[in-house]
Amino acid sequence: MIKTDILIIGAGPTGLFAVFEAGLLKLKCHLIDALPQPGGQCSEIYPKKPIYDIPGFPEVLAGDLVNNLMKQIEPFQPGFTLGERADTIEKLDDGSFIVTTEKGTKHHAPIVAIAGGLGSFEPRKPPITNISNFEDKGVEYIIRDPELYRNKNVIISGGGDSALDWSIFLTDVAKSVTLVHRRNEFRGALDSVEKVQELKNLGKIELITPAEVIGLVGNNKLEEVVIKQGAEVFNRECDHFIPLFGLAPKLGPIADWGLEIEKNAIKVDNTLDYQTNIPGIYAIGDVNTYPGKLKLILCGFHEATLMCQSAYQRIFPDKRYVMKYTTVGGVEGFDGSKKEAPKAVIKSID
Amino acid sequence: MIKTDILIIGAGPTGLFAVFEAGLLKLKCHLIDALPQPGGQCSEIYPKKPIYDIPGFPEVLAGDLVNNLMKQIEPFQPGFTLGERADTIEKLDDGSFIVTTEKGTKHHAPIVAIAGGLGSFEPRKPPITNISNFEDKGVEYIIRDPELYRNKNVIISGGGDSALDWSIFLTDVAKSVTLVHRRNEFRGALDSVEKVQELKNLGKIELITPAEVIGLVGNNKLEEVVIKQGAEVFNRECDHFIPLFGLAPKLGPIADWGLEIEKNAIKVDNTLDYQTNIPGIYAIGDVNTYPGKLKLILCGFHEATLMCQSAYQRIFPDKRYVMKYTTVGGVEGFDGSKKEAPKAVIKSID
Repeated sequence: MIKTDILIIGAGPTGLFAVFEAGLLKLKCHLIDALPQPGGQCSEIYPKKPIYDIPGFPEVLAGDLVNNLMKQIEPFQPGFTLGERADTIEKLDDGSFIVTTEKGTKHHAPIVAIAGGLGSFEPRKPPITNISNFEDKGVEYIIRDPELYRNKNVIISGGGDSALDWSIFLTDVAKSVTLVHRRNEFRGALDSVEKVQELKNLGKIELITPAEVIGLVGNNKLEEVVIKQGAEVFNRECDHFIPLFGLAPKLGPIADWGLEIEKNAIKVDNTLDYQTNIPGIYAIGDVNTYPGKLKLILCGFHEATLMCQSAYQRIFPDKRYVMKYTTVGGVEGFDGSKKEAPKAVIKSID
Repeated sequence: MIKTDILIIGAGPTGLFAVFEAGLLKLKCHLIDALPQPGGQCSEIYPKKPIYDIPGFPEVLAGDLVNNLMKQIEPFQPGFTLGERADTIEKLDDGSFIVTTEKGTKHHAPIVAIAGGLGSFEPRKPPITNISNFEDKGVEYIIRDPELYRNKNVIISGGGDSALDWSIFLTDVAKSVTLVHRRNEFRGALDSVEKVQELKNLGKIELITPAEVIGLVGNNKLEEVVIKQGAEVFNRECDHFIPLFGLAPKLGPIADWGLEIEKNAIKVDNTLDYQTNIPGIYAIGDVNTYPGKLKLILCGFHEATLMCQSAYQRIFPDKRYVMKYTTVGGVEGFDGSKKEAPKAVIKSID
């Protein structure tokens, strides 16, 4: 059982920054995220895209923003349960919560902060009837560890950046890489398209277009895919089939936690602390809704900050917290680190 | 008469960022600030102090944050009325406002956003009875333009960073620099204290300590100061006397604008848009108060953003604004500049 002060569901920018604000209040955080790495959409969907509306950054790549946030929260040693989706929640008699992931990992905390963004990103699956039989038996929708594909025969399907970039990356790892796409045209960064063209010319990527994978064959694990190209249908041996058709956010199991939902988001009290209808459960960032809500990262930062103050009051109802500015008080990490402004000296001149 | 869409009173970080959010909505901004440069406290009080709680910056000097914000809002060409304090406000029949500074500069806008921080910073004045007779006639509390002191005899009073740093700076400009302080000990950055010691040893700064300026003499402009050192009292000729005893924030004339005030701050509606009790006037950042308010820069950023949305609706009641993410839509400056993510290509591979 993992124990913490604030259990944060969702490790996107809002969830990450909550760790910092909690840390200033000496509260420990643990984050759960369905994706294999922190950063949410910023890391998974658009790490190389510039964001222009983060205050103080005329331009910052989404991936760099996440790296900066990870560095900012480092002194507060957050825990992570990654690659697992928060599945069920149970409220104990003392008002605290146990959250269990779909893989069975249990977390116990007096405060739960849902920072789930647009939801957990679920892969769009191709309409192949028996595909679920082969999941984790040769079919993967997200590449978690490229080493899985070392010296294997891999077939990737899709026509966007993910399909292009992973095809390129896996040529150095896999025994063979085959890219199947419905059209001859790909949609992605110019240099990715050109790199795939080059690797195709070198014989390092086999391209099958316009074509679709329409069936899967195997005895307990994937052995062949069935490909339809024009009128022709043929089988191709392979170890892995990776359909990369994008991710779509789904609120998922959280929708069944008894929280008030409106427009596919969690209603919160914006007049005070972004708490949900269940005391002790907060919702911050893109996952929440209230009058005038804007789904912006900078708003999530503010919401996370006010949430932490309220969480502190809930955990320590008898303590009165007096806020100290970081410019004055510095930052004391749980790891013993201390950052602060150079102190003024009092010194005579003679 | 200066005309704009949103008139922002206070050019600290919150006011500056409001320019950016307004710009995304194609609204123009003009800022008034009593200080001679933008940045508010960050520029005037602690430009060299690190801030640790700006999201995405593990550490940023206050002055650098201001520089970054200035760069971020550059495409939206804000106007500035600096070194003047907003003094009176008048509501016209069409619901718009005219704000006049104490120097008589008039500004006309349908929306006023007060981002006044802790108030306008007023210098702490030494208790010299006739000092007001010499203001701007040889006595200045804030150094607006160092050129004013070229080849002049300057007496600075104070024992903190401002007194130390300006004494150092003016040795290169003024004919003579004399520093008067009540004690022998100075309180400031170590290298500033050491630099003053060095300049004193070189004969470039004259130090008179422990001593106080207790009187001013002159015919229509300052000619001499009266200095008391121990039991001794003597006069010293000079062109300028600059007492640097710090700045204290005062809400100032805004307190008389008919706004609801609570705890020396302006009450706003945090359930929607940070509007005050006067429709069309908003208050954002440290100057406002509402349940759970935290006086943090990052909260001001959020408030500025929601305020701009509301201002847009007020200016264009019939238009429905659909927010576009800057990652998707980029940033189109009023100066014709355009920033956006590199576009995906659609390209066939053969």
